[in-house]
Amino acid sequence: MHTSPTRPILTVGSMAFDSVRTPAGKADHVLGGSVNYFSLAASLFTPIKIVAVVGDDFPKEHLGFLKERNVDVSGVQVAAGKTFHWVGEYDTNLNEAKTLATALNVFEHFDPKLPETHTDCPVVFLANIDPVLQLQVLNQVRGHEFVACDSMNFWITGKPAELKETLKQVDLLCINEKEAFLLSDEKSLEKAARKIQSMGPSNIIIKRGEYGSALFTPTGTFLAPAFLVDEVIDPTGAGDSFAGAVMGYLAEAGANRAMMKNDPQAWDQLLRRSVVYGTVMASFTIQDFSIGRLKTLSREDLMHRREKFMRMMSVG
Amino acid sequence: MHTSPTRPILTVGSMAFDSVRTPAGKADHVLGGSVNYFSLAASLFTPIKIVAVVGDDFPKEHLGFLKERNVDVSGVQVAAGKTFHWVGEYDTNLNEAKTLATALNVFEHFDPKLPETHTDCPVVFLANIDPVLQLQVLNQVRGHEFVACDSMNFWITGKPAELKETLKQVDLLCINEKEAFLLSDEKSLEKAARKIQSMGPSNIIIKRGEYGSALFTPTGTFLAPAFLVDEVIDPTGAGDSFAGAVMGYLAEAGANRAMMKNDPQAWDQLLRRSVVYGTVMASFTIQDFSIGRLKTLSREDLMHRREKFMRMMSVG
Repeated sequence: MHTSPTRPILTVGSMAFDSVRTPAGKADHVLGGSVNYFSLAASLFTPIKIVAVVGDDFPKEHLGFLKERNVDVSGVQVAAGKTFHWVGEYDTNLNEAKTLATALNVFEHFDPKLPETHTDCPVVFLANIDPVLQLQVLNQVRGHEFVACDSMNFWITGKPAELKETLKQVDLLCINEKEAFLLSDEKSLEKAARKIQSMGPSNIIIKRGEYGSALFTPTGTFLAPAFLVDEVIDPTGAGDSFAGAVMGYLAEAGANRAMMKNDPQAWDQLLRRSVVYGTVMASFTIQDFSIGRLKTLSREDLMHRREKFMRMMSVG
Repeated sequence: MHTSPTRPILTVGSMAFDSVRTPAGKADHVLGGSVNYFSLAASLFTPIKIVAVVGDDFPKEHLGFLKERNVDVSGVQVAAGKTFHWVGEYDTNLNEAKTLATALNVFEHFDPKLPETHTDCPVVFLANIDPVLQLQVLNQVRGHEFVACDSMNFWITGKPAELKETLKQVDLLCINEKEAFLLSDEKSLEKAARKIQSMGPSNIIIKRGEYGSALFTPTGTFLAPAFLVDEVIDPTGAGDSFAGAVMGYLAEAGANRAMMKNDPQAWDQLLRRSVVYGTVMASFTIQDFSIGRLKTLSREDLMHRREKFMRMMSVG
């Protein structure tokens, strides 16, 4: 359908160790971080270039594994000190993590500098970090054609002006329901989305955890349920891997701003399909702790579950 | 598609006065009750026969209005005393009502006796009342061909054996998510549904409030989002009017057990379509207090919003 070549995605965010407790069990000091989940998901579709910082305690094997998966880790800075560490838990409401502790460690002085090889990526994903850093990265990319980002309540309330500066340059915002309400000061999904669109992003995906997501494009609204899984082991990374599949699919399809303007209907449908991939990807992520399931997930696994999910959404 | 003639639905449940407070405002002593919401919704599709009890304070004008709407109220007993009165409120979680007071009044000694004219209804909906009464009504119906029911935590924990007796005769259970988990002692939707199916009902609709619903038939699973409304005024009656549209649509299509057995695929699709109607109907109900919106709702209004909703669900 699309003749554009697959394009690499540049992404900036966190590489981390997570210690997490869920109703299904617990995991200590396991691999986590937004760009980690994002890259593993997106790399099933397109090459990825990461900008991030890790400490000297970060396993080199994992960087090697990412390399094998079509992820360029040459922009990952290795700094003296410890890797970012997040400690959190989920109670029976699996839609919301409770942060127990955050040790920024080397992340505290993260100064994202792009290698020359990374400055011409047409597609950019700014994972959930300080909006000042998001903009700093974006300003180093020449001629980007499609930019997406994530954010959270911490930045919405802590750096609202900075976040709004970033949002002006963003084409797609992926955000949780509560955060969408906080950012927009609205209480209904549709009003929130329309208000956020006026801040910059023409396209918004509002994530609702186990209840699915809502997509708002310039021409339409798409309501996607979540895929039903028997047991949620660990919701950590669901949103980042969701975004990874969305962006991977879009990059593979050659998505850019011109496409959005030239054929808004086709654009709307392209984004709907990307949300389906995002939903299915997230459903795998939550079936294991850390990146356990994503490490072995194949494109065939994804396509197989996608078929099943499409039948669950069909009115018939 | 279906050649069977439209068949009347017999329904038993409550006619009530409600006093309700929601984030949008409050309403005192307004018309409510499960069969009231159910009938108004279902009567857009098919004739309805109500079995219920009201006090001598119940407005005759309302019974007259129901009559005009194709609802047979000759089975509504008028007893000396006051009509059932429910007092409740919703906080920001609009998915769950908090009951502040319940005055059963004439409902306390409700002894549902069917007029002879009501005993041959092929389609039956047992709204959320004591499962003993549900069964008592069902036993008075000769040769029913399709039976649906609703229930709640109060009966699931209070009369589990009696509820299970009723469920053995039920073809479709409409129930809230929390209640499905309580009834099945499971924590995932699919496991809960499969377990409830083993109790009798081949078809289950699990309602998730603002997040939509999930349908489980013998051959498939359908996940429906909720229609997006700008503001929820009062969620009361959403579930009952949802069931009303589902059952009205099914009765109009001539749904019965034979159809379910003879062509399980067509049956599955019929039920998916019914859930779409239920969802759209509920979205109107919650846009006003009491039966305010349902009183003036036309089939055209319903079809128009259904089209919009179908576009919101389409992957494209």
